[in-house]
Amino acid sequence: MVETIRFRNGRLELVDQRLLPGKFKYVKCDTPREVWFAIKDMIVRGAPAIGITGAYGVYLGIKGIRGKDTAAIVRKAKKTAEYLATSRPTARNLFWGLERMVRSAMNNRDKTPALLKQLLLREADAILDEDKRICRAIGKNGKKLVPKGARVLTHCNAGALATADYGTALGVIYSAKDKIREVLVDETRPVLQGARLTSWELVNEGINATLICDNMAAYMMSKKRVDLVVVGADRISANGDTANKIGTYSVAVNAKYHGIPFYVAAPESTFDLTLKNGSEIPIEDRDPMEVKRMGGKLITVRDIKAANPAFDVTPAKLISGIITEKGVILRPTRRRVLQILKG
Amino acid sequence: MVETIRFRNGRLELVDQRLLPGKFKYVKCDTPREVWFAIKDMIVRGAPAIGITGAYGVYLGIKGIRGKDTAAIVRKAKKTAEYLATSRPTARNLFWGLERMVRSAMNNRDKTPALLKQLLLREADAILDEDKRICRAIGKNGKKLVPKGARVLTHCNAGALATADYGTALGVIYSAKDKIREVLVDETRPVLQGARLTSWELVNEGINATLICDNMAAYMMSKKRVDLVVVGADRISANGDTANKIGTYSVAVNAKYHGIPFYVAAPESTFDLTLKNGSEIPIEDRDPMEVKRMGGKLITVRDIKAANPAFDVTPAKLISGIITEKGVILRPTRRRVLQILKG
Repeated sequence: MVETIRFRNGRLELVDQRLLPGKFKYVKCDTPREVWFAIKDMIVRGAPAIGITGAYGVYLGIKGIRGKDTAAIVRKAKKTAEYLATSRPTARNLFWGLERMVRSAMNNRDKTPALLKQLLLREADAILDEDKRICRAIGKNGKKLVPKGARVLTHCNAGALATADYGTALGVIYSAKDKIREVLVDETRPVLQGARLTSWELVNEGINATLICDNMAAYMMSKKRVDLVVVGADRISANGDTANKIGTYSVAVNAKYHGIPFYVAAPESTFDLTLKNGSEIPIEDRDPMEVKRMGGKLITVRDIKAANPAFDVTPAKLISGIITEKGVILRPTRRRVLQILKG
Repeated sequence: MVETIRFRNGRLELVDQRLLPGKFKYVKCDTPREVWFAIKDMIVRGAPAIGITGAYGVYLGIKGIRGKDTAAIVRKAKKTAEYLATSRPTARNLFWGLERMVRSAMNNRDKTPALLKQLLLREADAILDEDKRICRAIGKNGKKLVPKGARVLTHCNAGALATADYGTALGVIYSAKDKIREVLVDETRPVLQGARLTSWELVNEGINATLICDNMAAYMMSKKRVDLVVVGADRISANGDTANKIGTYSVAVNAKYHGIPFYVAAPESTFDLTLKNGSEIPIEDRDPMEVKRMGGKLITVRDIKAANPAFDVTPAKLISGIITEKGVILRPTRRRVLQILKG
């Protein structure tokens, strides 16, 4: 599996996902500003991955502070977290990672500056290491839901490139590899995470995969080429409503219409229990030029407007189950979400 | 409006729709082989437009025949029609146009060769002229279905570039222009007829249009930004099941889920009353490279398979009405289709 995020020689190294699959290259980040840009410009993307990236970003913000003032480090950690939180609004994991770093700084404000810095690096490392275990647990929990000979459809990329290990939705696919006959990959316009990233991962892993345009998913369902759908998530409200990459909702409506199980795979850190339902999840609107241009070239008329919501919300009632590291939340409701996460 | 198809100085001239919106250029066809390629490679596309193109193609096949043998012209017309019928399999209008030319040749087999040739050119001209009147009648019939201040979603291109006049689905939009607040344009992967052709037409006509990726349509519906959907058609079976550009079915399922009226606009020549239902409509599978490449460049990994069905079938039960030149077939069934078309 690809190592999407690594910390080496005091720098954060990220696979530049803008260039895949054409080029495989690490971008090195030394400062919070570089980390902010890496998240904003989608050098790194995928909710768990940007949670980890954000955590290291906080460390990069405090690592260079000289002097004996621990409080200055705590203040800087907070400020850096606030700054990084402005990079992208939807994925819960980013805020979760940032909050965890700030909490660690607060909890260790009695330590020496040198020790505090060390502890904060350790906290970021812990977030990365935990994500690996979480991916494996999600994969294991999801495997049971995959029937023998299954044809699975996925949208966007919730794989190794979106996490520190083999992914959430793709983790389920990797762990159930022997039972899977085919994976249909939605190309996922406008940024083509399916065509560029998921296709690359699945071909590298020797999994039988077929790329489709997003608008072909319903047709494939009508032709009985899809037995189940599994996708990742960017933020899940307390009742199970799930924000994920734009287009997920359309797949969910179509899966419902065709009687096909629709699963979400996500760690606990993607849940935002402060939100009652999905209508409260902020949806990022990105540059319309992402829709109007492809490979740097205009694909439409210059004067047309374009919409570019980066996510949509799939209501819980369309979701057969949410696969977490703690277990599967079947037919999610507020009660069942709390039962699995807190029970 | 653009003149998509014209016959000048003994040649068929077609706007090269592969190059739009970047370049506006006519391709000139002198032979059935050139016409075959123009249809196959989608220099010209849209069911009514390829019906007209096919008709002129038959004329180009017989136009150069010398000698006094009328039967030779009839034979050549038949052979040319059979040949052109192999270019693309789904749109009914192509076969309808070809059959009409063959019928005209048969009906005039007693004429002199010179007169027969003249009559066949006149038949192709008539098909083109009739299409203009048909577009206007569809526009007029569809206008009544558009509420004031409507936001309309359309998929692919069923406009001036798909017909000899202002289109079928876009004809409805053009005729109801004063009542329309906004048109959402599905980009329509993989060939991007929405992004390239419909956007170009609507901006040229000064209509408030917003381009979206196909996978955003459901999200826009959930945000109440769509009051009705109107699309074209490539073939309609006797019960109202409708083959149209891939992705139409997904839009129809989503429209149903959101309680949004879904209309098809098409001339009688798109109906294939010999087919009981949509499962009998042949669906063209095109080159997977149309999905894997964009602007000549690979957008995914070389080794992944890709599916490329060019059409899908929307069952009649998802269709609120089919707008024809003879009237609107509301909630289509076999009985209602025949009532409007034959009544």
